[in-house]
Amino acid sequence: MDDESLKETLKRVKKGELSIDEASVELRKISFSDIGFAKLDDHRALRTGQDEVIFCLGKTPEQVREIAKELGKNKKLLATKATPEQYASIKKEFEEAVYFENSKTVTLKPEENDFIGSILILTAGTSDHSIAEEALVTAQFLGSRTELIADVGVAGIHRLFSHKEDIDKAKVIIVIAGMEGALASVVAGIVSVPVIAVPTSIGYGASFEGLAALLSMMNSCAPGVAVVNIDNGFGAGYLAHIINNGLN
Amino acid sequence: MDDESLKETLKRVKKGELSIDEASVELRKISFSDIGFAKLDDHRALRTGQDEVIFCLGKTPEQVREIAKELGKNKKLLATKATPEQYASIKKEFEEAVYFENSKTVTLKPEENDFIGSILILTAGTSDHSIAEEALVTAQFLGSRTELIADVGVAGIHRLFSHKEDIDKAKVIIVIAGMEGALASVVAGIVSVPVIAVPTSIGYGASFEGLAALLSMMNSCAPGVAVVNIDNGFGAGYLAHIINNGLN
Amino acid sequence: MDDESLKETLKRVKKGELSIDEASVELRKISFSDIGFAKLDDHRALRTGQDEVIFCLGKTPEQVREIAKELGKNKKLLATKATPEQYASIKKEFEEAVYFENSKTVTLKPEENDFIGSILILTAGTSDHSIAEEALVTAQFLGSRTELIADVGVAGIHRLFSHKEDIDKAKVIIVIAGMEGALASVVAGIVSVPVIAVPTSIGYGASFEGLAALLSMMNSCAPGVAVVNIDNGFGAGYLAHIINNGLN
Amino acid sequence: MDDESLKETLKRVKKGELSIDEASVELRKISFSDIGFAKLDDHRALRTGQDEVIFCLGKTPEQVREIAKELGKNKKLLATKATPEQYASIKKEFEEAVYFENSKTVTLKPEENDFIGSILILTAGTSDHSIAEEALVTAQFLGSRTELIADVGVAGIHRLFSHKEDIDKAKVIIVIAGMEGALASVVAGIVSVPVIAVPTSIGYGASFEGLAALLSMMNSCAPGVAVVNIDNGFGAGYLAHIINNGLN
Amino acid sequence: MDDESLKETLKRVKKGELSIDEASVELRKISFSDIGFAKLDDHRALRTGQDEVIFCLGKTPEQVREIAKELGKNKKLLATKATPEQYASIKKEFEEAVYFENSKTVTLKPEENDFIGSILILTAGTSDHSIAEEALVTAQFLGSRTELIADVGVAGIHRLFSHKEDIDKAKVIIVIAGMEGALASVVAGIVSVPVIAVPTSIGYGASFEGLAALLSMMNSCAPGVAVVNIDNGFGAGYLAHIINNGLN
Amino acid sequence: MDDESLKETLKRVKKGELSIDEASVELRKISFSDIGFAKLDDHRALRTGQDEVIFCLGKTPEQVREIAKELGKNKKLLATKATPEQYASIKKEFEEAVYFENSKTVTLKPEENDFIGSILILTAGTSDHSIAEEALVTAQFLGSRTELIADVGVAGIHRLFSHKEDIDKAKVIIVIAGMEGALASVVAGIVSVPVIAVPTSIGYGASFEGLAALLSMMNSCAPGVAVVNIDNGFGAGYLAHIINNGLN
Amino acid sequence: MDDESLKETLKRVKKGELSIDEASVELRKISFSDIGFAKLDDHRALRTGQDEVIFCLGKTPEQVREIAKELGKNKKLLATKATPEQYASIKKEFEEAVYFENSKTVTLKPEENDFIGSILILTAGTSDHSIAEEALVTAQFLGSRTELIADVGVAGIHRLFSHKEDIDKAKVIIVIAGMEGALASVVAGIVSVPVIAVPTSIGYGASFEGLAALLSMMNSCAPGVAVVNIDNGFGAGYLAHIINNGLN
Amino acid sequence: MDDESLKETLKRVKKGELSIDEASVELRKISFSDIGFAKLDDHRALRTGQDEVIFCLGKTPEQVREIAKELGKNKKLLATKATPEQYASIKKEFEEAVYFENSKTVTLKPEENDFIGSILILTAGTSDHSIAEEALVTAQFLGSRTELIADVGVAGIHRLFSHKEDIDKAKVIIVIAGMEGALASVVAGIVSVPVIAVPTSIGYGASFEGLAALLSMMNSCAPGVAVVNIDNGFGAGYLAHIINNGLN
Repeated sequence: MDDESLKETLKRVKKGELSIDEASVELRKISFSDIGFAKLDDHRALRTGQDEVIFCLGKTPEQVREIAKELGKNKKLLATKATPEQYASIKKEFEEAVYFENSKTVTLKPEENDFIGSILILTAGTSDHSIAEEALVTAQFLGSRTELIADVGVAGIHRLFSHKEDIDKAKVIIVIAGMEGALASVVAGIVSVPVIAVPTSIGYGASFEGLAALLSMMNSCAPGVAVVNIDNGFGAGYLAHIINNGLN
Repeated sequence: MDDESLKETLKRVKKGELSIDEASVELRKISFSDIGFAKLDDHRALRTGQDEVIFCLGKTPEQVREIAKELGKNKKLLATKATPEQYASIKKEFEEAVYFENSKTVTLKPEENDFIGSILILTAGTSDHSIAEEALVTAQFLGSRTELIADVGVAGIHRLFSHKEDIDKAKVIIVIAGMEGALASVVAGIVSVPVIAVPTSIGYGASFEGLAALLSMMNSCAPGVAVVNIDNGFGAGYLAHIINNGLN
Repeated sequence: MDDESLKETLKRVKKGELSIDEASVELRKISFSDIGFAKLDDHRALRTGQDEVIFCLGKTPEQVREIAKELGKNKKLLATKATPEQYASIKKEFEEAVYFENSKTVTLKPEENDFIGSILILTAGTSDHSIAEEALVTAQFLGSRTELIADVGVAGIHRLFSHKEDIDKAKVIIVIAGMEGALASVVAGIVSVPVIAVPTSIGYGASFEGLAALLSMMNSCAPGVAVVNIDNGFGAGYLAHIINNGLN
Repeated sequence: MDDESLKETLKRVKKGELSIDEASVELRKISFSDIGFAKLDDHRALRTGQDEVIFCLGKTPEQVREIAKELGKNKKLLATKATPEQYASIKKEFEEAVYFENSKTVTLKPEENDFIGSILILTAGTSDHSIAEEALVTAQFLGSRTELIADVGVAGIHRLFSHKEDIDKAKVIIVIAGMEGALASVVAGIVSVPVIAVPTSIGYGASFEGLAALLSMMNSCAPGVAVVNIDNGFGAGYLAHIINNGLN
Repeated sequence: MDDESLKETLKRVKKGELSIDEASVELRKISFSDIGFAKLDDHRALRTGQDEVIFCLGKTPEQVREIAKELGKNKKLLATKATPEQYASIKKEFEEAVYFENSKTVTLKPEENDFIGSILILTAGTSDHSIAEEALVTAQFLGSRTELIADVGVAGIHRLFSHKEDIDKAKVIIVIAGMEGALASVVAGIVSVPVIAVPTSIGYGASFEGLAALLSMMNSCAPGVAVVNIDNGFGAGYLAHIINNGLN
Repeated sequence: MDDESLKETLKRVKKGELSIDEASVELRKISFSDIGFAKLDDHRALRTGQDEVIFCLGKTPEQVREIAKELGKNKKLLATKATPEQYASIKKEFEEAVYFENSKTVTLKPEENDFIGSILILTAGTSDHSIAEEALVTAQFLGSRTELIADVGVAGIHRLFSHKEDIDKAKVIIVIAGMEGALASVVAGIVSVPVIAVPTSIGYGASFEGLAALLSMMNSCAPGVAVVNIDNGFGAGYLAHIINNGLN
Repeated sequence: MDDESLKETLKRVKKGELSIDEASVELRKISFSDIGFAKLDDHRALRTGQDEVIFCLGKTPEQVREIAKELGKNKKLLATKATPEQYASIKKEFEEAVYFENSKTVTLKPEENDFIGSILILTAGTSDHSIAEEALVTAQFLGSRTELIADVGVAGIHRLFSHKEDIDKAKVIIVIAGMEGALASVVAGIVSVPVIAVPTSIGYGASFEGLAALLSMMNSCAPGVAVVNIDNGFGAGYLAHIINNGLN
Repeated sequence: MDDESLKETLKRVKKGELSIDEASVELRKISFSDIGFAKLDDHRALRTGQDEVIFCLGKTPEQVREIAKELGKNKKLLATKATPEQYASIKKEFEEAVYFENSKTVTLKPEENDFIGSILILTAGTSDHSIAEEALVTAQFLGSRTELIADVGVAGIHRLFSHKEDIDKAKVIIVIAGMEGALASVVAGIVSVPVIAVPTSIGYGASFEGLAALLSMMNSCAPGVAVVNIDNGFGAGYLAHIINNGLN
């Protein structure tokens, strides 16, 4: 029930066109999509970005284009896990859409806004870069200042410590690692800010497509870590942003 | 927002004590638990039985008693997976509560109502009896006529066929089997009514506590089968009842 | 033993050509495929549709065509999980066969019959559409009135509630969801009719090709849900139909 | 190298007892535990609470007591997963230690400090209470204002929505759910703050001791969720606190 | 339909009391439990032993006694996985029943019959003895000459080869091994008779209760091996017997 | 130590060129590959067929050809899981090699020998045909009379029973089934001969590439069943042959 | 064939009582247990310790005592995973046997021998101590100088680095860790000696009884690590010893 | 802090430009990347080979080339799991790089150095050759004398024993096996040197891409075995080398 209908009903009560009982029944009929969830919707409008995100996996290029057309009305759009075909399809609608090939991410954005706060993304190895890019693009799209320090896995832990200063400055840290995923525990052990761990499917054999890293991160002996899905750079970037955003 | 508050608001609009805009804001505040979901609640009241069911696993006897006290106001109550201690705790509140030891089920019921329709429960082996009893007690508690034919597993498939007549009369069939769970497929292959399959944790070794039976039932080559959780006699009895109930 | 042989035997008894003992032995020889199961067969003939269904996975186009030729004698045929090649092969036999590309389903049907009852299919996301189509085509092929409301997953639960009215009208509901499959529990919590849950392989990482959704649906905290195999749109459509069919 | 040795070396340089080169070699020998990590240690001292936490699983009561004695010097101590025997052992050392029986948590704390911010813990069912208590005790021990709304699982989703107002006030939300764990996705879909999901081992059969809930939460279709280990109330409370703490 | 009814029907046909058509209908009604499966039953009566076997897991002592009473009419009975309580319950009915404590097997048997053929049971380690005993008791109960060579696992493969002569004499070999289960492959590589492999739950850690041995045996690089369930000594003894029995 | 060296040593003993003690030491040196295992080898030569089998998976066409050349000296050769390329490579060496495309099996055989005994292969569905062909070709290659009855899965169990007569004649039965694999239990329940169960990877979703069928068959409630690896038609054909061969 | 028989045969050749051909056949009969493997046995006698080790899991106290009696003839014996009952049983035979309660290890040893080389055991947490003790006792029993540094897990990685000097001295390192097992990778990244990783079952929830640590260690991004079974302190101690032993 | 800054500081202390206290503070600031870890780095420079290894999986050809350019400055480089494209990319930089096609390994090496010690690689079957080649190339690259004996799996165990002499000479043994991986246990049972087991993904069905072999090797009943990741030939070669290297 939109505002007009609601007020209309009330006016008719005032005028005596509707009895109290009739109006009561009328208002009871209000489906929560009309009332209850309108509030939710308004609320959701306040959230940065989610409404403009398309998860492309399993959708046809045509479906992606349709959804992009609708969600991208304000020239703001993020599409994740997008194949080149899906990107091409979006591009037909929005010429200025940009494609990040490594991470298969598409962005459409107005003039660069001011970035806030400080998110740091750490990756264990070069192979984790595509997922890191997804997290980076997501967090920047949403408005967070985000930096990436790559290839600081525990096989040579001094590489990590040489960045201690940058690490100490971050307000939220995303750790991206495949194989045994040990980097998450090590980082959580030396910082006091939230660590979001992203297991990646990098590895082979008993990495079981990221399961080893996932379980490892889940069992971190250092507290302060929470885990998102394997290869879910977007999820990490999004969560890091809403934490970082609240801090500013 | 209960009915009185709603009408009160409307009255005040009528009297002019509240402007249209003020009333509009007021009504917008209505949480959906007050309005939107009241409808849901009324609706749920129409459902047979769910509101009177306690799932006892992981609750202290005291918690069970508290919940029982509240839900059992109409002297109608079903508690599943209840230990003897939990039963004893319920009994303190409701002297007439009955305990089915095998299935660890507690019932509290008014005078026997008329049973409707026809549910048939088939078990593969004697060891599946406790889960069968849970399904039986549940379906009867909810008001369905329910019968049990035990020990007709596929190791001696003639035992099943000797009950063909009873099987043909059923409107819904529950198949309860552990080990390889093959009975579900066989039954679904000879009937034209819905088959609800309940894998049980009966077995050892590679039965992996019911996983073998679950996967087997999930992959039934005969259509018309759906599966509930391992050892979930209650779930099967409940679902069978709402199908059976709709048919009458 | 066909009818003629049986009557022939009896005639010879009557004529005295066979002694009672000889005839008794003769009749004992009757294999149950000839007698016992003929009854089964007649019975199965009453079932809607199963005899005309081909599960195409793992079959060569030629095998599919052979089976189609035999099963499709009454110009009624449903083939699931059919590749374009398998469809082409069926088409050679039945020019009027229709191919649903998304769901890889083939149908061959006489004039549209009257649809009965009311099945509602709900999907969590656009990506689940192909499985939904399989369920839809199946249930309609078998004769059930079936509707589809897409993209009402729990990430924005108001989308679901805005269809509350349609949901309340359904006699059976099929919920199709990948990822975490939470939609099944939520729907089962607000309706009083049977819910058939179909986990889909949509997702990535720890969705493990649908395992996450399957386990989630299996453990639904709301009763009234049963689960079919991952991506088994056909199984859900079939089961929904036999429940819906019994209700009319 | 402690401060004294360092200054001693420098004095000897000043006095000319050590050449620049000799001193350079000497100082190079400084193990990082002495220098480099002293910084770390100081840094870690700034972190609220971690240094005073004992994870009791797999430790003997005597070991627990020893550790407690050392960590609890400031009369501040948190011990998780503590058996009554382990608690008794701590109590011998610290008479004023308190035991939370449900969650097997022990706390030792000075006068109640001012609580900051706002953490909200939501549980799906009564059975999840022990884990919720662990999270609650942890977050409060660390200094966060923390509230608990129990039993708002998706089987009756209106129970959740009736607390919408409280939900909207929280700065961080912890969702604790066993079985299918759907509550995490639903909550993340209606809020804009970080959601920390804790799968619990509540359930049976195909819940596989919390695996179903874990996978479900990992695959949340709503972004903004990260997951900690099954039954890891402490981890959730700790992470929620450091997010909440940063926000104030 | 028993013999008398059948002959009665035929007599009435002969006498003309029943028309051919009427008799035809009458005979069609014969349920297969009465006719078709009687044949099956007769057939099954020819099988050695299965009808006298009770699988005790998940049955109450009282249920076991009831079943024992019925199956043991000919003073011949085998009960597997029987607890001491279940044994005691059987003993009340059959004083002469014998209990094999290690393997939890109960036997009741008439005078020792002649043993036929030659089954050899090989175990990898002393810890596999209880399962070996179950296989041994089963095969001997059914009438096969059966010997056991224990503790010839591959950690010291010369122990195996020192029994080469005995191994060469066997007509069927049962290999019982936990941990990595390698013995099955090694044995199959040096014999030309069927090898039945029984994985046991002996081991710890990544043996996952026998899963490691099961998978290992399943993947035997030497052909001629088939696998029964983890700890299924009975199944191996039974299958070995029917192979051995056919050979004599 | 080849025969000549052995005899040479003995001759020198006879001639007095070697003392008893010296010869004793000499003979002790004999490596078992020379003596001990020669016996094994001779023994293995008595086995039908294994020495002429190539498992092609993971080998290059060139490697396959090399091995074929060596093993196929007697114009007798069986190659399994052979790609068309691997077959082509064998064909270069042996023009008369035959390729079974469905099962990817290659055979090279002298004039048809007399087949012995009776193996029966039952498949649950048309899709299992390729594995059945592998078993059939293997058993026939080794010399066993082997028949195949296809498509008798439990979805329409009357199809199985209509072949009861053929089933009763078999001395060994191979059951090949994917999906839920229930056929193995049902067959084992109605026969008294050994049943070798082959799970196939036919199915989708929760069949997990044959795992569901494997677990199902492992847990058969009917005794007399043993299981070989998923899709291991060769292993089943081989084992069936050595059982069947012993029986004749 | 013992020495006497062999010499006897040779004598008869010398005397001409046996022809060369006859003797050749006779000697071919020599089973390898008699000849070939005697060599093996002699060889194995050279191995330190394995012959004196009892793995107690799944053995009765009586069986353990019997084996101890035989293996412990030289007053040297190691028994692992021994319950107090099993220890008591050994003690009856060998009064001087010592029991390590934490690790359930029993040792019986002559006067302390000289320890060689240098093995270092690192544990992640106090809870890993029992497994560490098993490794320590094993390596010392076999004769290796072995030290233990406990509680240096990655949650506070400075604890590890403060022992850098000791770490650098070790010739072989055993890393023992439960939960996420990250310590193995970190250690392997800073040393150049072999690292043997022992996952422990310490942890809960998604540690899945040590599986998380096992997979983590298997996927170590630092080379130089190999893994033994979960909780297999003995295996690690044994392997470390034979590496260390070779180095001296 | 580089050497110059350090000496500069000390000079200023000597000159009295910095007080002891000021210098103390200054030196405390030294980040461990500057001091502490420089030592680590130097240390790591002493390790043979690791610094020159590229793990190519998941990297673009361009990334591989960049890394190769940097690491290969001394004309020494090892790249594993390299696609032909990645090799081509390296070749552009280093013309003399060699590609091992089977194992996808690239090497770049100065004049052949002297090989030390003795590593033996044993494979179970021809199909394991590619992984064996990776181990061989790695160990030789690092400087170890390494030999390969192929195709000695347990299906014909005499093949293994015929190489007993070579086996006895090795100082470290690598066992490479897919399917059931039994070779590792058998080898460990007859040698007294360290055995490094490499499970391979060779197999099908229930080998689950190497999981069966991995679990089997983990559970070896013979001590002295440790396991690296599935298909991790590099890891085995590296570890074998550092053991072998220490021994010389």
